[in-house]
Amino acid sequence: MARPDGRAPNELRPVTITRSWLRHAEGSALIEFGDTRVLCAATVEDGVPRWRRGTGEGWVTAEYAMLPRSTDTRGARESVKGKIGGRTHEISRLIGRSLRAVVDFKAMGEHTITLDCDVLQADGGTRTAAITGAYVALADGLKYLRKKRNLKNNPLAGTVSAVSVGIVQGQSRLDLNYLEDAVAQTDMNVVVTGDGKFIEVQGTAEGEPFDRAALDGLLDLALHGCGELSETQTKALA
Amino acid sequence: MARPDGRAPNELRPVTITRSWLRHAEGSALIEFGDTRVLCAATVEDGVPRWRRGTGEGWVTAEYAMLPRSTDTRGARESVKGKIGGRTHEISRLIGRSLRAVVDFKAMGEHTITLDCDVLQADGGTRTAAITGAYVALADGLKYLRKKRNLKNNPLAGTVSAVSVGIVQGQSRLDLNYLEDAVAQTDMNVVVTGDGKFIEVQGTAEGEPFDRAALDGLLDLALHGCGELSETQTKALA
Amino acid sequence: MARPDGRAPNELRPVTITRSWLRHAEGSALIEFGDTRVLCAATVEDGVPRWRRGTGEGWVTAEYAMLPRSTDTRGARESVKGKIGGRTHEISRLIGRSLRAVVDFKAMGEHTITLDCDVLQADGGTRTAAITGAYVALADGLKYLRKKRNLKNNPLAGTVSAVSVGIVQGQSRLDLNYLEDAVAQTDMNVVVTGDGKFIEVQGTAEGEPFDRAALDGLLDLALHGCGELSETQTKALA
Amino acid sequence: MARPDGRAPNELRPVTITRSWLRHAEGSALIEFGDTRVLCAATVEDGVPRWRRGTGEGWVTAEYAMLPRSTDTRGARESVKGKIGGRTHEISRLIGRSLRAVVDFKAMGEHTITLDCDVLQADGGTRTAAITGAYVALADGLKYLRKKRNLKNNPLAGTVSAVSVGIVQGQSRLDLNYLEDAVAQTDMNVVVTGDGKFIEVQGTAEGEPFDRAALDGLLDLALHGCGELSETQTKALA
Amino acid sequence: MARPDGRAPNELRPVTITRSWLRHAEGSALIEFGDTRVLCAATVEDGVPRWRRGTGEGWVTAEYAMLPRSTDTRGARESVKGKIGGRTHEISRLIGRSLRAVVDFKAMGEHTITLDCDVLQADGGTRTAAITGAYVALADGLKYLRKKRNLKNNPLAGTVSAVSVGIVQGQSRLDLNYLEDAVAQTDMNVVVTGDGKFIEVQGTAEGEPFDRAALDGLLDLALHGCGELSETQTKALA
Amino acid sequence: MARPDGRAPNELRPVTITRSWLRHAEGSALIEFGDTRVLCAATVEDGVPRWRRGTGEGWVTAEYAMLPRSTDTRGARESVKGKIGGRTHEISRLIGRSLRAVVDFKAMGEHTITLDCDVLQADGGTRTAAITGAYVALADGLKYLRKKRNLKNNPLAGTVSAVSVGIVQGQSRLDLNYLEDAVAQTDMNVVVTGDGKFIEVQGTAEGEPFDRAALDGLLDLALHGCGELSETQTKALA
Repeated sequence: MARPDGRAPNELRPVTITRSWLRHAEGSALIEFGDTRVLCAATVEDGVPRWRRGTGEGWVTAEYAMLPRSTDTRGARESVKGKIGGRTHEISRLIGRSLRAVVDFKAMGEHTITLDCDVLQADGGTRTAAITGAYVALADGLKYLRKKRNLKNNPLAGTVSAVSVGIVQGQSRLDLNYLEDAVAQTDMNVVVTGDGKFIEVQGTAEGEPFDRAALDGLLDLALHGCGELSETQTKALA
Repeated sequence: MARPDGRAPNELRPVTITRSWLRHAEGSALIEFGDTRVLCAATVEDGVPRWRRGTGEGWVTAEYAMLPRSTDTRGARESVKGKIGGRTHEISRLIGRSLRAVVDFKAMGEHTITLDCDVLQADGGTRTAAITGAYVALADGLKYLRKKRNLKNNPLAGTVSAVSVGIVQGQSRLDLNYLEDAVAQTDMNVVVTGDGKFIEVQGTAEGEPFDRAALDGLLDLALHGCGELSETQTKALA
Repeated sequence: MARPDGRAPNELRPVTITRSWLRHAEGSALIEFGDTRVLCAATVEDGVPRWRRGTGEGWVTAEYAMLPRSTDTRGARESVKGKIGGRTHEISRLIGRSLRAVVDFKAMGEHTITLDCDVLQADGGTRTAAITGAYVALADGLKYLRKKRNLKNNPLAGTVSAVSVGIVQGQSRLDLNYLEDAVAQTDMNVVVTGDGKFIEVQGTAEGEPFDRAALDGLLDLALHGCGELSETQTKALA
Repeated sequence: MARPDGRAPNELRPVTITRSWLRHAEGSALIEFGDTRVLCAATVEDGVPRWRRGTGEGWVTAEYAMLPRSTDTRGARESVKGKIGGRTHEISRLIGRSLRAVVDFKAMGEHTITLDCDVLQADGGTRTAAITGAYVALADGLKYLRKKRNLKNNPLAGTVSAVSVGIVQGQSRLDLNYLEDAVAQTDMNVVVTGDGKFIEVQGTAEGEPFDRAALDGLLDLALHGCGELSETQTKALA
Repeated sequence: MARPDGRAPNELRPVTITRSWLRHAEGSALIEFGDTRVLCAATVEDGVPRWRRGTGEGWVTAEYAMLPRSTDTRGARESVKGKIGGRTHEISRLIGRSLRAVVDFKAMGEHTITLDCDVLQADGGTRTAAITGAYVALADGLKYLRKKRNLKNNPLAGTVSAVSVGIVQGQSRLDLNYLEDAVAQTDMNVVVTGDGKFIEVQGTAEGEPFDRAALDGLLDLALHGCGELSETQTKALA
Repeated sequence: MARPDGRAPNELRPVTITRSWLRHAEGSALIEFGDTRVLCAATVEDGVPRWRRGTGEGWVTAEYAMLPRSTDTRGARESVKGKIGGRTHEISRLIGRSLRAVVDFKAMGEHTITLDCDVLQADGGTRTAAITGAYVALADGLKYLRKKRNLKNNPLAGTVSAVSVGIVQGQSRLDLNYLEDAVAQTDMNVVVTGDGKFIEVQGTAEGEPFDRAALDGLLDLALHGCGELSETQTKALA
């Protein structure tokens, strides 16, 4: 019942965050969770979407996508198919919601930050890597905005990271890689603030429904993992 | 801190399930959670999607949509816009996953059931009403299939219902209506089997991140509500 | 040569109009022509399409659609296909034209009413049921508008209903159901005002071309049927 | 009350049919109704659409389109907009239905003829010119098919032409040009066989609803006009 | 090694330009290079695209398309497919760039000319015929604009024509027809001003890569051909 | 008249090729021309497109895309817009043609290689970097294919690289970066084989038309640059 890469059940894969990987973006990070690599870029723009104009508040949104050959078998480009799939939509919305939870929109003023999270290589956990990396890009984007527009208050109101947990062969595990994810009975993505509160909890029974005790065990693992990710983010932004 | 419609915090809205509302569909139900009305139809077809052919197993999928004027202000039709939005995608996928959790695909054989969940009128909780109603349509669809194809084993392996819970003005509440949903700090949709296990837990902090105790309280409420919904389903199918 | 449901050749199916079936819409009606059920909703909005701005005149438009399982075999959603089919386009345009014929746009001022006609269950005659039901929703929508915007003149300048007629097995018949429609040699949809004038006449030879005498017989039937429908509308709006 | 181009009320515009205008198509015609110019091409292909396979019967279909600058002000290309408009759909379907009415599909065998009707210049009556010209292209296409596949029976079972009629300034007129069409109170397109029977009657009240007598007058005019068009077709095909 | 139509290697096909073929367009030309027929229309409109507003300069753009049956086998309509193919995009862009090279945008003022180039019949060289014909339509469009808006300076700053050249069976040839184009080892489209300078050179090795000497020979042929085309344009515009 | 980054007119930017940057792809390379970074992945699949089946020959195709924030200002995703732009189409086609010129399709057998070229960061010359990097990915992809399918002959029939040249401030320059590209009077992309022959020559006058002498000078520069790139490729593949 050893994990495919020999990790302990509560052990993250090696996590690397390369800050400012891109030259043009106001904030960016190449984040790696093991072989999963996601390039996160923050774009700062003046103005907000139409429905938010005149509120004096800013906006943060995200777009997630996978390169065609980030995966083991090539996936058709959504641009070529002419439409975005449900999974892409769902993850983009999750990333956006997660980051908005730590932003003070009033402090931002009417500016928009778009987080582009492009998966260059996928090995499980791309959405949680994306959230964790996008936070770093967002922090730099907001720093840029604050300086450029001379904002009085810091629009960054907290920190956020995310991790997947799941039950594989009856065992609760942290940060599933693709091999584990593919056979997990239960799969959960948890988004947590730096002070250990939940922003998002999404658990799905892929096979058997799970009981309250299993749920509790997974939440424990997730809080532990996000604690470590939070430290890695802090180091990257130091 | 009374609820807008005077319910107790742990009280469902009046729930009505009109079985076989449609003449053509192999299973159907018009479900009402208060003013929320969702028409659920099960279509039974031979064959399965390409990627599943030759496995001997069946498939269950769902499509959710809202009529343009189901809501307070008219929404543009997705057919006219030429694409399906992220929210629609997300909910369709959720309904499909939730129902698949109680189906024995081997017992089904290579047949497909599509659940169409069309919101005729919306007042909060449309996705949970859709899951709860679609279960009834699915049960009748599977009964039809079993008889028509003379299946040896019952493909329906359990029951499933869903409810929303949330924190409104600091209070945990069951089955939010639209007014409550719009101001909830935390919003959670929970999908539960008839024997009280979780199929899906989706909690989102709309405002403040929520702590472990709040999460636990919401899960308690959800289990309670799904217990009642499960009874209503059983009566409808009697 | 009896009709499948035993009606006389010049007999309508039972027609029911449930006014104000929807809570949010400014006008609505669930109309039934036998097993055909169409939900019609009128949405009143300020402003008019760009090409009509500054004219001081209002606008009325319609969108028709069928739920996937309104029919005997499930039809793919147009939102999923990403485009609207020719039949849908054609019927939406027909409904819009028919209703515009009884509206005084100057009296309306620069407001728009959109009629959504969604077929919940189909058994032939969905477009004529939609026109007949949409008239009721429109009447209520205009009443709402008149009151809300304090309009001096009544923008509703007449009444309109519609019915299908056709030649089946050599016999001219009123209000074809699906079984009859599928085998009709000639199929005609006729839209008539309350005072018996034509707004639209659309006759198509599905099999043999038809002669002048046949055309005349069908028009007689249609005028008769619309007379009855007009009375039913009047009662519903009383 | 003279017509803008001085014609008598029951007078067609000069009609020219240039047969075989295209080199590649199996049948083609450039048809002119005054300044209206439509290029019609028949493409003969083996096989039929999926839903018709195995029936032993052929199929005829049509696609109508306008060049962007066929009209007085440029219209955006539907290929650029990424979707086909309602009017285009409606006219394509009308042309297809009209031609299918004179084809013996059993005699055709499982072959398909597609009629492309592209409006090079528009001055009213493009759909009726398209039907009238497409008939010539179809006749040549079927002749080609009959010879190539050595068909025993002639698949062309009749002739068909079409014309518009309308009421302008209270006067019933034949073959409206654009100036007349734009101000017509009633507009009707009529598709007629060579022996004077109706294939399609589509009358619309653009302004005032019209009574039975007006309808009768328009039908008389249309039968007269189609008689002349039928002769012109015969000469072109001689 | 004779050419399929007996021409000398440096000989153009018969070229015909029918100026003002269309009644509505501000400039138009039906151009024929042998059996290739392209209808070119210039539409003059006030205003420029958003990104160019406020510059005081005009804009020229082009759209190229082929009728479905312009070719030997029917091609599906891009409007029906719902998207524009790569080849169409590429040629539209080429035509636009080529014409913009001879326009003085400051002299034009903020007006836009759109060149629609629709291939009615294709036999090789459609893009070069389109450029050569569109120049004639453009010249008339600019003349119309200059007069209508009383422009001080002539916005037409030069002349432009285009021709294809290629290596077929080892021989360099001018103005390939379809038969030659299909077997050419190298295919080159060259756009040249009236005074013999290059606007665009697009050479592609379809089979063997080509050396510098071959390239030089093709450029000689192209300059020669464009010289003749330039004269034909001048006569058409006289 | 110094170049913005101080290079000599005939000097390439620093070029780096990181072979096998991706874990899943059968061949891959991250190529850098200065700040331009393109990730190239080769996917090897059995089978060929429908139109090529049964020929016994393979196929090579390419898809080019830019990440939204690869550029100075963020560009909207083509997947979100729902269609691929003309520039993307054009470059994808160019890359595919360029690589096909050095492939022996008979030796490949009926297999397809897709080259995905995704621009991670753009600073001019993305299409030429893509071709040069895709060649390396292709070489590895073909090596993989040859081994896996035990192909008798080497399907790689030559080498190919590409570079941009242009005239900036009257001076001919090699490998323009974005600053230079934006102000170039003439811009040319040249694709060259390892033995100095042309596969593609695409020169465009952005401002003034260019004469024969200028064209000759640019071709000299391009041949020189591609010679150096060819050596870099050879080293990367050693």
